[in-house]
Amino acid sequence: MNKLLSAWEAACASSGALRFIDINLRGIGQVMFQDNPLTGALFLAAIGWGSYSADVPQVALGGAIAVVVATLTAQWLRADRAALHSGLYGYNAVLVGLALPTFLAPDPLVWTYVVLGAAVSVVTMLGTANALKPWGVSALTFPFVLITWLLLLATYGFSGLSGSELPAADAAAPYVPVATGTLAFGDFMQGVLHSISQVFLKGSVVSALLLLAGLAVNSLAAAAFAVGGAILAVITAHLLGAESELITAGLLGFSPVLTAIALGTVFHQPGWRVAAYAALGTVFTVVAQAALNVALAPLAIPALTAPFVLVSWIFLLPRQSFDESSTQ
Amino acid sequence: MNKLLSAWEAACASSGALRFIDINLRGIGQVMFQDNPLTGALFLAAIGWGSYSADVPQVALGGAIAVVVATLTAQWLRADRAALHSGLYGYNAVLVGLALPTFLAPDPLVWTYVVLGAAVSVVTMLGTANALKPWGVSALTFPFVLITWLLLLATYGFSGLSGSELPAADAAAPYVPVATGTLAFGDFMQGVLHSISQVFLKGSVVSALLLLAGLAVNSLAAAAFAVGGAILAVITAHLLGAESELITAGLLGFSPVLTAIALGTVFHQPGWRVAAYAALGTVFTVVAQAALNVALAPLAIPALTAPFVLVSWIFLLPRQSFDESSTQ
Amino acid sequence: MNKLLSAWEAACASSGALRFIDINLRGIGQVMFQDNPLTGALFLAAIGWGSYSADVPQVALGGAIAVVVATLTAQWLRADRAALHSGLYGYNAVLVGLALPTFLAPDPLVWTYVVLGAAVSVVTMLGTANALKPWGVSALTFPFVLITWLLLLATYGFSGLSGSELPAADAAAPYVPVATGTLAFGDFMQGVLHSISQVFLKGSVVSALLLLAGLAVNSLAAAAFAVGGAILAVITAHLLGAESELITAGLLGFSPVLTAIALGTVFHQPGWRVAAYAALGTVFTVVAQAALNVALAPLAIPALTAPFVLVSWIFLLPRQSFDESSTQ
Repeated sequence: MNKLLSAWEAACASSGALRFIDINLRGIGQVMFQDNPLTGALFLAAIGWGSYSADVPQVALGGAIAVVVATLTAQWLRADRAALHSGLYGYNAVLVGLALPTFLAPDPLVWTYVVLGAAVSVVTMLGTANALKPWGVSALTFPFVLITWLLLLATYGFSGLSGSELPAADAAAPYVPVATGTLAFGDFMQGVLHSISQVFLKGSVVSALLLLAGLAVNSLAAAAFAVGGAILAVITAHLLGAESELITAGLLGFSPVLTAIALGTVFHQPGWRVAAYAALGTVFTVVAQAALNVALAPLAIPALTAPFVLVSWIFLLPRQSFDESSTQ
Repeated sequence: MNKLLSAWEAACASSGALRFIDINLRGIGQVMFQDNPLTGALFLAAIGWGSYSADVPQVALGGAIAVVVATLTAQWLRADRAALHSGLYGYNAVLVGLALPTFLAPDPLVWTYVVLGAAVSVVTMLGTANALKPWGVSALTFPFVLITWLLLLATYGFSGLSGSELPAADAAAPYVPVATGTLAFGDFMQGVLHSISQVFLKGSVVSALLLLAGLAVNSLAAAAFAVGGAILAVITAHLLGAESELITAGLLGFSPVLTAIALGTVFHQPGWRVAAYAALGTVFTVVAQAALNVALAPLAIPALTAPFVLVSWIFLLPRQSFDESSTQ
Repeated sequence: MNKLLSAWEAACASSGALRFIDINLRGIGQVMFQDNPLTGALFLAAIGWGSYSADVPQVALGGAIAVVVATLTAQWLRADRAALHSGLYGYNAVLVGLALPTFLAPDPLVWTYVVLGAAVSVVTMLGTANALKPWGVSALTFPFVLITWLLLLATYGFSGLSGSELPAADAAAPYVPVATGTLAFGDFMQGVLHSISQVFLKGSVVSALLLLAGLAVNSLAAAAFAVGGAILAVITAHLLGAESELITAGLLGFSPVLTAIALGTVFHQPGWRVAAYAALGTVFTVVAQAALNVALAPLAIPALTAPFVLVSWIFLLPRQSFDESSTQ
């Protein structure tokens, strides 16, 4: 594997075109924090499969266009070269590009929206990274969430764009539960895997497996925390009495999956204390997901990965050192 | 008094169990900025009385469990020892523990919620304190507000928890006033005292007097600013034409009381210029309280002490020096 | 012109009363970033005309009272002398003073509100400036937006104040377009000029021309970017299918106009790369304006210049250097 990547890196160093492809693949990989073009290629396959099998090719196309626009924008803005080459200006745009054709009807203006959103996501990424520098905290997917929320909200004021899959506006109302039987194993497994694939806005078992493969080729720990986070999220959601369909569709689990990977493997060295801390954050992300679903109901927009961003910032800001040898 | 406290401090220094009690009492005292175990004990009595007299023992129990969980969490996270011993990781949890059983029906999961909320409030306190360090501004009760909002909002998505005392969801609508007569002195005094006791989420004259006693044993100025802030808040609310029942129940006054203490005694040395500044902040907190009540109506959650946090941050961020000898 | 200004400056230096007038005029000029008393005088004329011609003299009066209160507050708080003399503590208050009588019925308490809002806007300006110092980003009109939102929201809870021109509370709902014909040139020009005059909350061609004159006497580039921003905003809004009446009334263009001036001339040296960057920000401000109109609908308050503040912060935080000689 390493040999393959070394050969690829050498090829990229001598070819602008390959480097451009490399940057965009890493941008896709960075959606789950992996700076690895092979991970990006496997994630791209997962996106393609999810988009193809759900018969919405425009979703995968939107993601691809967006990441390319983002890379070009970052180059035009002369963004930091190391960050650019690691794909850090691409991952938010990928998500913007997937989200817009997912929630909006296929009007021609959607493509203008994808290009605009991708370009502005780079500006927002540059700004957020600067803003957070004093605290040593990462921008996560905040640029994606902010820009996509604005673009989606604005469609309610524009006749040229219309939401086809946006939630209906609704005031906060108590959830009336249906009788829930015991949790079937098949539903449980589906909920776990869909929680992983919904990071890329699709419920698909095949996509989930491709994503796990993409994580595993770069970091076994990341793959393990993704699965562990998904399992914990599904169990937590069931114990609290969330709607079964939401859980099985993975819609309460994708933010917790990202929290688990981020707290467990990206910003801390894995270990038992770290795992306990990440678990607390993962459980609370389920609460935050349900909370933001309710809070955004009057605005008729989806929470996207905002619960992940919010809870991960809360848990990263203390800058806890989990180095076991350190003492107070 | 000082002799008693010295003896207590000596006893705590030699006993882990007493130190643990001391930390939790100080945590309760810090809800109103007082780092004093006797203040905490009097506040605990106020909580107990308010909870007992309203026939909701689970509220006081929630507060007690939460502060203990918070102290244990802070110890596990190896939080700063001086801050821990001053009760700074406990006061947000106390409020979380009081608020959840106040607004939610007594389902068994409420206790899970109390433990989860208390633990996460410590993480949020650590993070907020770090985040605000560049500006020299305190976290105030922001962690309590944020975590409780998320926990309450999420109940609308969970069948295992349900709001019993949450406000009904409502769009912003002009307030249709009822004919208001002259303000009776009894209602006025009740509004003032309830404004103080509502800091701990209860309208009770006895609790208010216990809270004032708790303030006075540590800081006469704090007690004076609490009473002055409550009087100013009740008068302001009446002049602006707020609903009489809200005022008399203390529901427009508890945030202004906290603003008055914070701006008047905690972060500035008391004096005439400071009093005028604190009065401006206190009056504006009444406006902010009414504003947030309206803003949160579509989400069907209470404003908690968010108006106090917002206005106090606005008034603390200028880092005004009121030292009379200083010149521009 | 420069000679006139030098004579005026000399007169101010020797007269406290003239200096006081100078500060207030500059405060009015700073609404559009111009530190020039003549600009302020022309802007004041624009305000007066807009207010007189729409038969709402209380609006201009509110603006005038507010800027004077703000200057006195800043002096009492011993604010930084250079910033004070540049009008930086006045521009938010001017807008607060214009907005309150614009949206509220002329109850006597409106004047209390104007004084309170103006005083608190100065505190908020001091605090915001301190808060943003680490990032080298300006407060823009954030204090105006925050304080006016709170004051307007609170009127729904007070019988002493009532909104007469506030939007009705409404959940987010898809915009049903009416058949739009071709864009008439007269409507186009009106939309452009009203986009400029709505910065001061009035749709008036004469006011717009006075504002452009005020910009031009201090900065031809600012006047050019104002016109360019307005044109770009009107075209963008039409292409996206926004409501024609909103566009022609200038209600989708005033925030983009401010973004164009800020990004194009205030915080960067004008140039082609800068113009492209400012254009991207201006287009996105149209989206943000539509988005915030929708987002605030349940709260029944106007977006004010929040879209400008939000997008300009996003585009200023990267601290892009557009110096052509610099290399990565």
